[in-house]
Amino acid sequence: METWKQYIEKHQQRFLKELIELLKVPSISSKSENKPDMQRCAVLIEQEFKAAGADTVTIYQTNGHPIVYAEKIADKSKPTVLVYGHYDVQPADPLNLWDSPPFEPVVKDGKIYARGAADDKGQFFMHTKALETMLQTHSMPCNMKFIIEGEEEVGSPNLATFVESHKELLACDVVLVSDTAMIALDTPSIDVGVRGLSYIEVEVTGPNRDLHSGVYGGAVANPATILAKLIAGCHDADNHITIPGFYDDVVEISKEERAEMAKAPFDETAYKKELGIDAVWGEKGYTTIERTGIRPTLEVNGIWSGYTGEGAKTVLPSKAYAKISARLVPNQSPKKITEALIHYFENSAPAGVKVKATEHHGGEPYLTPIDSIEYLAAAKAMQSALGKEPVPVRGGGSIPICAIFEKALHKKIVFLGFGLDNDNLHSPNEKFDLANFYKGIETIPYFCKYFTELYEAKH
Amino acid sequence: METWKQYIEKHQQRFLKELIELLKVPSISSKSENKPDMQRCAVLIEQEFKAAGADTVTIYQTNGHPIVYAEKIADKSKPTVLVYGHYDVQPADPLNLWDSPPFEPVVKDGKIYARGAADDKGQFFMHTKALETMLQTHSMPCNMKFIIEGEEEVGSPNLATFVESHKELLACDVVLVSDTAMIALDTPSIDVGVRGLSYIEVEVTGPNRDLHSGVYGGAVANPATILAKLIAGCHDADNHITIPGFYDDVVEISKEERAEMAKAPFDETAYKKELGIDAVWGEKGYTTIERTGIRPTLEVNGIWSGYTGEGAKTVLPSKAYAKISARLVPNQSPKKITEALIHYFENSAPAGVKVKATEHHGGEPYLTPIDSIEYLAAAKAMQSALGKEPVPVRGGGSIPICAIFEKALHKKIVFLGFGLDNDNLHSPNEKFDLANFYKGIETIPYFCKYFTELYEAKH
Repeated sequence: METWKQYIEKHQQRFLKELIELLKVPSISSKSENKPDMQRCAVLIEQEFKAAGADTVTIYQTNGHPIVYAEKIADKSKPTVLVYGHYDVQPADPLNLWDSPPFEPVVKDGKIYARGAADDKGQFFMHTKALETMLQTHSMPCNMKFIIEGEEEVGSPNLATFVESHKELLACDVVLVSDTAMIALDTPSIDVGVRGLSYIEVEVTGPNRDLHSGVYGGAVANPATILAKLIAGCHDADNHITIPGFYDDVVEISKEERAEMAKAPFDETAYKKELGIDAVWGEKGYTTIERTGIRPTLEVNGIWSGYTGEGAKTVLPSKAYAKISARLVPNQSPKKITEALIHYFENSAPAGVKVKATEHHGGEPYLTPIDSIEYLAAAKAMQSALGKEPVPVRGGGSIPICAIFEKALHKKIVFLGFGLDNDNLHSPNEKFDLANFYKGIETIPYFCKYFTELYEAKH
Repeated sequence: METWKQYIEKHQQRFLKELIELLKVPSISSKSENKPDMQRCAVLIEQEFKAAGADTVTIYQTNGHPIVYAEKIADKSKPTVLVYGHYDVQPADPLNLWDSPPFEPVVKDGKIYARGAADDKGQFFMHTKALETMLQTHSMPCNMKFIIEGEEEVGSPNLATFVESHKELLACDVVLVSDTAMIALDTPSIDVGVRGLSYIEVEVTGPNRDLHSGVYGGAVANPATILAKLIAGCHDADNHITIPGFYDDVVEISKEERAEMAKAPFDETAYKKELGIDAVWGEKGYTTIERTGIRPTLEVNGIWSGYTGEGAKTVLPSKAYAKISARLVPNQSPKKITEALIHYFENSAPAGVKVKATEHHGGEPYLTPIDSIEYLAAAKAMQSALGKEPVPVRGGGSIPICAIFEKALHKKIVFLGFGLDNDNLHSPNEKFDLANFYKGIETIPYFCKYFTELYEAKH
């Protein structure tokens, strides 16, 4: 009988062709002009799941972008794996920095380049192909459900309501998510935590119109200067965040756990070289791995004010704007941090300007216990597919829906990520290594197998 | 015999029509796409001077935009007034804040709205019409020369060379400039000084591409955050500028002169109301008038980095940019200050980012002695046309060419400005009061008359 490994090898080229079709759709959830593309993408995914052998596939419309649900119930007595993924992508700008158009996928040196290649189309599609593979090779040991949403990049505003109102539909024994990265195929790793997120937009208003900087400069508060001062005030000289209360709920990690984490291989020289920087930066007293894993951060994602065109314009701007987000760790509350950020910005400016800060979206941090059968099944699966035991790591990113699933379904989330840190997520030239794509498809059936065994042994 | 006052009244409507044609040309010197408009504008001005009665009009091409030269030599034994003006204008963006298109002039409530209405097309055109008026009413007491350039808003990069190489052509006894403002027609004032200018552009480079703020945030220096810190570091808590050496050459003003300046009427409540601000801002220990007149300033004219579009993008930007300019007072050197600014920005950033600061353009400050016949002629002219003696004030703006003329021609510059501070120079809805336009045309012949008398009495 054909093994799933053989089946995947035989159908590699078709799997790739199908992925390319998916990547061609500019499903940017934050831009209103792409709404039709979101619908088109949902329909394409529906067709893919039907073709893969799902016995029910439904597109659920929401107040925002549609959710695609699929399931294959093989044997009600068996455990059920619920796969979560998202088909929406980040905006592609700055377009001029892409070597090839973001929605015209290109394969080069065994990597596929396109917006969404790794985050998350390429990764959720591994599950679609794993479903097909298990069915075609009669090796599906459990039931599978799939929920693929279209609003992850904008904070999943409608998913919580959907999950809450479809608990029965989504009833499962584990939630499996492939929306994270690993260190490398020959150094497999599993994210055991994702950071939470607070995101605000700040608007500083000075005079009621742009002014001549010679006639008014020096006598009227410049909103760009004030905004710069507010941003500068967010970190002290040691790059600790100064927002009052910011660290109040942060769970400090034990010496032992930090020592454990420090075992994960990290080559700072290679890291700096790959990013083109001459030094790393960050909170005093922590390593780069810790700064992106166990510590909360605050970043300016965008800032704009005044004249930004060609040449010189001597203007004192009326308005200045910034997009600012914080990554949160257990047990920080996005709600509390967002309020603290808004309070800081709205109350720290001098008279002469008005500051309005508004919330974009947030997400709770999440942690998977490494002694849980969910984690153990994932670890064994990687060991079997990649021939090496994975190391547990803390991911720096945020997947706001984790807490939602746990709250509504009372099941654990486990991350089986096949992306790499250098996949340029959210950046120009996003890519996904095809070796990781195929290995991911091969690993998922192992996960289903081991999870079913461990689950049945436990119950 | 018809007086020039009568002639101006009779031809008001035609003067306005001609000004409107001039304002329709989008002569933006900083934008390459407007190069053809610059040529078109120069030709239009050439025709206007010919129609006004100039006996020589020439368009001189430069490495940048053309210079229009015109002259009317009535009597070589008489003194010569050289009028300087500029036909180039600032960019019009943000376009959405204009109530009517910037290059489709609209007359409303006795004001004409268009980019360049006051700065400087409306004001140099007063001189064209004054020339016509004096010739038609046989009241021209002196010779007149006109040099109208197209690069004032970009720092007159080619004017210095032109003036140096055309000293004979431009030989004169006084340089008359209408590119400044007065307090009001019923509170006439004359600028006795303009501030110098240093203008730089700062580029901060962090990682070699935009990064995922979750994966890299907190571990890699964010150029937007660093730029904000650099800008915040330019002013201390008292809003003194902290750039080393910035104040070294500033001429401190005597108590007496400050007391004299304080007599100029200033209504802070009206000032704040007109700008929509709840408080003024600026260097501790100085009044608003002093902050914009006798003190140097440093302003952010523009800043941009990262994602500035709709919605949220969790990106750690690769680049951050700012346009920053300083207004200078006697005896600050633009060269020295520009070097100090570049040095500060390029040497104050932490490892992990690279900072490149480049010079945009600069200009020397200038002062007209109030006991000079040039100033006295201007003051008498305003007194005669407006029925009230003008007060001397320090203008906040910069006219980089002043020093150029004095150096090359060894003659004094006098400012006869008819704009108002609320003309929205460099801002949306720039306007020029038609009453000021007509009064300006009426005042110029008085200036020629009194200057000629004072000059001849002196020599």
